[in-house]
Amino acid sequence: MDVKKKLAEAYYRTTYPMLGHGKRNLHVLQEVLQGMDGDLASDMYGTGAVIEQFQSEMAAHLGKEAAVFFPSGTMAQQIAMRIWCDKASIKRVAYHPLCHLEIHEEDGLKELHGIQPVLLADKERVIRLEDVVNMQEEVACLLLELPQREIGGQLPEYEELEAISAYCRKKGIRLHLDGARLFEVLPYYQKTAAQICQLFDSVYVSFYKGVGGIAGAILAGDKLFAEESVIWKRRHGGDLISLYPYILSAAYYFQKRKENFPAYYEDAKELAALYNRCHGITTKPLVPVSNMFHVHVSLNREKLAQLLLSLYEETGVGFTHGLYAAGEDACYFEVSVGDCYPRIPKEIGRQAFAVLDRKMKEFME
Amino acid sequence: MDVKKKLAEAYYRTTYPMLGHGKRNLHVLQEVLQGMDGDLASDMYGTGAVIEQFQSEMAAHLGKEAAVFFPSGTMAQQIAMRIWCDKASIKRVAYHPLCHLEIHEEDGLKELHGIQPVLLADKERVIRLEDVVNMQEEVACLLLELPQREIGGQLPEYEELEAISAYCRKKGIRLHLDGARLFEVLPYYQKTAAQICQLFDSVYVSFYKGVGGIAGAILAGDKLFAEESVIWKRRHGGDLISLYPYILSAAYYFQKRKENFPAYYEDAKELAALYNRCHGITTKPLVPVSNMFHVHVSLNREKLAQLLLSLYEETGVGFTHGLYAAGEDACYFEVSVGDCYPRIPKEIGRQAFAVLDRKMKEFME
Repeated sequence: MDVKKKLAEAYYRTTYPMLGHGKRNLHVLQEVLQGMDGDLASDMYGTGAVIEQFQSEMAAHLGKEAAVFFPSGTMAQQIAMRIWCDKASIKRVAYHPLCHLEIHEEDGLKELHGIQPVLLADKERVIRLEDVVNMQEEVACLLLELPQREIGGQLPEYEELEAISAYCRKKGIRLHLDGARLFEVLPYYQKTAAQICQLFDSVYVSFYKGVGGIAGAILAGDKLFAEESVIWKRRHGGDLISLYPYILSAAYYFQKRKENFPAYYEDAKELAALYNRCHGITTKPLVPVSNMFHVHVSLNREKLAQLLLSLYEETGVGFTHGLYAAGEDACYFEVSVGDCYPRIPKEIGRQAFAVLDRKMKEFME
Repeated sequence: MDVKKKLAEAYYRTTYPMLGHGKRNLHVLQEVLQGMDGDLASDMYGTGAVIEQFQSEMAAHLGKEAAVFFPSGTMAQQIAMRIWCDKASIKRVAYHPLCHLEIHEEDGLKELHGIQPVLLADKERVIRLEDVVNMQEEVACLLLELPQREIGGQLPEYEELEAISAYCRKKGIRLHLDGARLFEVLPYYQKTAAQICQLFDSVYVSFYKGVGGIAGAILAGDKLFAEESVIWKRRHGGDLISLYPYILSAAYYFQKRKENFPAYYEDAKELAALYNRCHGITTKPLVPVSNMFHVHVSLNREKLAQLLLSLYEETGVGFTHGLYAAGEDACYFEVSVGDCYPRIPKEIGRQAFAVLDRKMKEFME
């Protein structure tokens, strides 16, 4: 068996896996359905109480006129870009070089919609006002991802967001929020979702990241935007006869966890500090601004995997199930804090980090 | 309340609703999950035992090298068209004027893929060999829907299918099967699914029609076709982190109902004969060739709705929940036979049809 698979399996066998809310297994759905009335009618191609009620609730929560449930964020965001491009008769949008649309969607935006991106900022930092002001090309829409996941979940300051929003409104550039982890950044900004969203013309939020649902997304904006997105949803093949397995779980876990995001954020800062005290380890950002961060380690992937396998064996604590290379002698992994981390007894966690620190010194010699 | 809504509500209140397998409610999913092991791991973006195993089983069942699970047939079929068009460098496909892609998908094929259709045959009949032979335009692919749903579920004879398939192979035209109701036509053809599918280069089947699952589709073909379809699935936003609610229900209900299709077909013929004995009523086709048919009635929608409301009240038998206009003085509705029809006691069914016949005479005066 390769080390990658070995590490994942060892992680899931630990007594105290540290990431997120736990395993993505059937129990996640069973918990939602148990005790629910079997007579509850399915949604039917976007209509019916199950979907309409959740859409209304999310529109209100995000402070938008209307919200539409989608099976995926990939679909929702391409459609948002298409609507704004059609409206402006400009087939160009601006986003970060590590935007989900650029690196994780097999170029759907280009291949299906013929929309070309303008890449703003460099890969190491978030988009700033000056990037937008200095943009040479005319674009229909600017997409901002809060937090910028691929660089550890970094954020611009709220004042800079306001300035970007004001500039875009002045210039007639639509502003779209990739809010895959929107709820996760509210504690840092000390704002409500609606306060953040009022800076944007359209907003996407996800229900299987911090919320911990099964899949699915909401796309919100004004009424006309929402109506057009429903037509595009059908074109994309996303207007399923029944989306209720995703909707019910999104509603259930949003209700269950919506008050927990401040705690996840505090835990993330505590956990990052523990990592940063270890030999050869630095988190990015150094102090998290959401429930997520990246852990950069001065060992190659192979060596760190060996280290982690022995660490899990010795401590029973699981740190990560996967590693990404970062040059020849370094690698990193992503941490999202959810319900699992606070379940680790403090003393066991402290000891596990002491063992990690010791092993890092050994392995780096 | 309008008559349309009234009719639907009255239908679902009847003791013996006649159509399909019954209500699309949460119980359909609960039945699948009850007793299943909560530790079962979710699929992850198209990988994992849950999805891989079902895809293998369906590939074998359809006699194809590979099969890919999709959230919807709309997505699967547009992608099949795109793959064949790209391969042939021709942006045109041929299909029936009442093809799902033409009338139910908001022109996704044109708007997302830039593919233009050539419409074969007229709206009243299925595509024949001579339509294909006489086609003037060059096309990458011909799509055949078996049975042709919008005209009551009609079918070409098997020998004609073979001839069309042979002609397309000779001419280098890819042949795609819209098999939304493929399992439903096997009893008429007296063939296995694999025997039908070997006439086609690519095949789509659905799991929420005759099978009675929640949503979802399989697209099958050769290995390269399947691999390409996975890339397009991601582009469309259909490569969800978890599709298991649909996959588990598709597998469960396929297993539960796969032997029932001959009985549904026999019941459909019996039921159509009952309709055809009524005053002012004709089914299309006159003798069904699958589990479905259309019921054409010589009354306008308003009048027939009134008739049906009183019929349901008097007999407790539900005939349909919706009506479609067909000119000024006629309308029709669709019948799909599943688990509900055989639950109606024979004598109650016979009496209900006698009442229908009597009321038709009254209403047509």
